[in-house]
Amino acid sequence: MKQTLPAGLAATSVVAASSANLGPGFDSLGLALSLYDEIYVETTESGIRIEVDGEGAGQVPLDSTHLVVRAIERGLQAAGVCADGLIVRSRNAIPHSRGLGSSAAAVVGGLAAANGLVAHTDSPTLSDDELVQLSSEFEGHPDNASAAVLGGAVVSWTEGDGPLTRYAAARLSLHPDIHLFPAVPQIRSSTAETRAVLPDHVSHVDARFNLSRAALMVVALTERPDLLMAATEDRLHQPQRAAALPASAEYLSILRRCGVAAVLSGAGPAVIAFSTEPELPAEAVQYGVAHGFAVGEMAVGQGVRWATAQAVGGDVRVATATE
Amino acid sequence: MKQTLPAGLAATSVVAASSANLGPGFDSLGLALSLYDEIYVETTESGIRIEVDGEGAGQVPLDSTHLVVRAIERGLQAAGVCADGLIVRSRNAIPHSRGLGSSAAAVVGGLAAANGLVAHTDSPTLSDDELVQLSSEFEGHPDNASAAVLGGAVVSWTEGDGPLTRYAAARLSLHPDIHLFPAVPQIRSSTAETRAVLPDHVSHVDARFNLSRAALMVVALTERPDLLMAATEDRLHQPQRAAALPASAEYLSILRRCGVAAVLSGAGPAVIAFSTEPELPAEAVQYGVAHGFAVGEMAVGQGVRWATAQAVGGDVRVATATE
Repeated sequence: MKQTLPAGLAATSVVAASSANLGPGFDSLGLALSLYDEIYVETTESGIRIEVDGEGAGQVPLDSTHLVVRAIERGLQAAGVCADGLIVRSRNAIPHSRGLGSSAAAVVGGLAAANGLVAHTDSPTLSDDELVQLSSEFEGHPDNASAAVLGGAVVSWTEGDGPLTRYAAARLSLHPDIHLFPAVPQIRSSTAETRAVLPDHVSHVDARFNLSRAALMVVALTERPDLLMAATEDRLHQPQRAAALPASAEYLSILRRCGVAAVLSGAGPAVIAFSTEPELPAEAVQYGVAHGFAVGEMAVGQGVRWATAQAVGGDVRVATATE
Repeated sequence: MKQTLPAGLAATSVVAASSANLGPGFDSLGLALSLYDEIYVETTESGIRIEVDGEGAGQVPLDSTHLVVRAIERGLQAAGVCADGLIVRSRNAIPHSRGLGSSAAAVVGGLAAANGLVAHTDSPTLSDDELVQLSSEFEGHPDNASAAVLGGAVVSWTEGDGPLTRYAAARLSLHPDIHLFPAVPQIRSSTAETRAVLPDHVSHVDARFNLSRAALMVVALTERPDLLMAATEDRLHQPQRAAALPASAEYLSILRRCGVAAVLSGAGPAVIAFSTEPELPAEAVQYGVAHGFAVGEMAVGQGVRWATAQAVGGDVRVATATE
C-alpha cells in the first residue's frame, strides 16, 4: 500500500535546457545548456495549485495536466508514495517550442523535485538511470531528457518498443575549447509537426553517412573540435526540415559557409553553433539579429539537481531554487 | 618530369590486419589487429618480380596486377617518382577473404613501402592523411584502410562521391580493459557478394538505431567497455548477411547470448568478440572449434610502419621486415 506523504514537505529542483540531435545524431545525441528552469514543490492536504513565472507563464495549463505536475506524480508513484495535494511553482528560463528541450526540462525537473519530496521519507530516491528512463517515457525519445538528467553531452539510445521500451544514455565531457552559441528565434515550432516531414525510409547510403558522422561527433565533442564541421553533417532530418524553417536554415547555412559547425537545435527553430573561436562571424550575427534570433553564448549545462527544502506555504514566493 | 628511381633502392613495411564495421559502424568504424603482413620492395632495372610467402601464396597474381605492386606504383606516382622495375616480397600472416582486411593491408603496406623508397630521395613522403586517402580510393571505403594506416580503432568517413571522393579518419585509443577475440573460419567470403545482399533503403527507425549505436560504440571502445553489448547492436548489415554465413551467425549469436559483445568482422565470415573478461565462454569456444573457426586473442594493431632498407638483391630472401 502506498505511503501518503504528509502535508508540508517541500523540495526544489534545477534543470537545464538542452539541444538534441546535434546534426547527425537524430534522437540520440544531446547537450545540456546553461539555461535553467527552477521548480519548487510542496505537499498539501488537497488540490493542485500551480504558479508559473517566466517562459510559459499564462500559456501552460494550471491543473493536473501540467507537465511538471504529471512528472512529480509519476516520480512519487515510482518511489511508492503519493501526495493528497501539491503546490508547484516553476520559474522558467527555457523558452517553449523552440527546440531547447523545455518539455524535457519540465519532466526531468518534476521527477527530480519528486526525488526531493521522497528524500524526506525512508523510500529510496530515483537513480539517474531511472530518471533517464521515466523522463524518456514521457518524451518518447531520450536525447533531451538524458542531457537534462546527466548534464554535459550525451549519447542516448532506445531498446525495444512499445510499453517495454528501454532508454539509456552515456555522458560525455565536452572539450573545453568548444564554445556554444545557441540562436533562439521568436517563432515557435511543434516537434510533432517537424517530425511529420521525415521520410519513413532513407537510402542505405544516407544511413551510413549519418552513422559515420554521429560516431565522429562523439570524437569531435570530446577530443577533436577541429573535426566539428565534418562531424555535424546530416542527411536524416535537417534537409527535410529546412523548407519549414527558412530563416533557421539560412542562418545555419551562413554559419557553415563561414566554417562554423552549426546545426538545428532539436527540431528547431533554434540553431546551435559549435566553435573553437570566442565569437561568431559578424555576417552570421547580423543575419541572426535581423531575423529575430537572440544569439548568445552559453556554457554546457549541469545535470539536474534536487534538494529537500523548508515548506514556505501557500503565500510566500520561493526566492531561489536550491543549487 | 618524373624522377626515375635508380635500381638497388630498398624499403620495407609492416601493416596490420583489421576489422571493419564493428557492428553498427558500417563503412565507418575500424580496428587494427596485431596480425601483420610484411613487405619488402627493391627497385630494379626492369620487370616486376613478386614472391609471396604465407597467406595468399600460390593464389594471388604474380604480375603488375598484384595489389601490393599496384599500391607501390600508386605511392611512387603520388610522390612524383617511378621505378623501371621492382622486386616485391610479401610475407603474409593475414588470411584472405575472411573479413580481416587483407586487401586493405596489401594496399596500405604497398603505399607505405613506396614511402620507404621515396625516403631515399628528396621527394616528400606521403602523410598519414594521404595514405588514408589513397588506400581508401583502392578500397572504395575507408574503414579497413584507415585502421591499417593509423592503427588502434578509427572512425572514418567519406565526403562527396565519384572521382572527387574524399576519405578521412580519426584515431581512437582502445580502452585497456577490452580483450579482442577474432574467430577466423576456413571458409572464404567475397565482400562484393556480401555487399550485394544489402538493401538500397532502410527505415528511418533503423537508420536512427544504427547511428545511436555507432556513436555509443565510440564511447564503449574508449571509455565505457561496460556498454559494449548495447553498442555493438546493428540493423544495417549483419541481419541481412546472416543467412549467407550461418556458422558465423550462430557463433556470434552464442557469444551474445553469453553476454559477450560479438560482431561480424567486416563482411565476415570472421567474427570478432570484445570482452572485458580474459577468456571467452567455453560454450562459444566449443562451437567455434567444432565449426572450423580458429579462435584466439589478439592485441590492437599498430599503424603501418615503413623504413628504408639495404637492397638484398634477387636471390636472398628477406629475413625480417623492419619494425
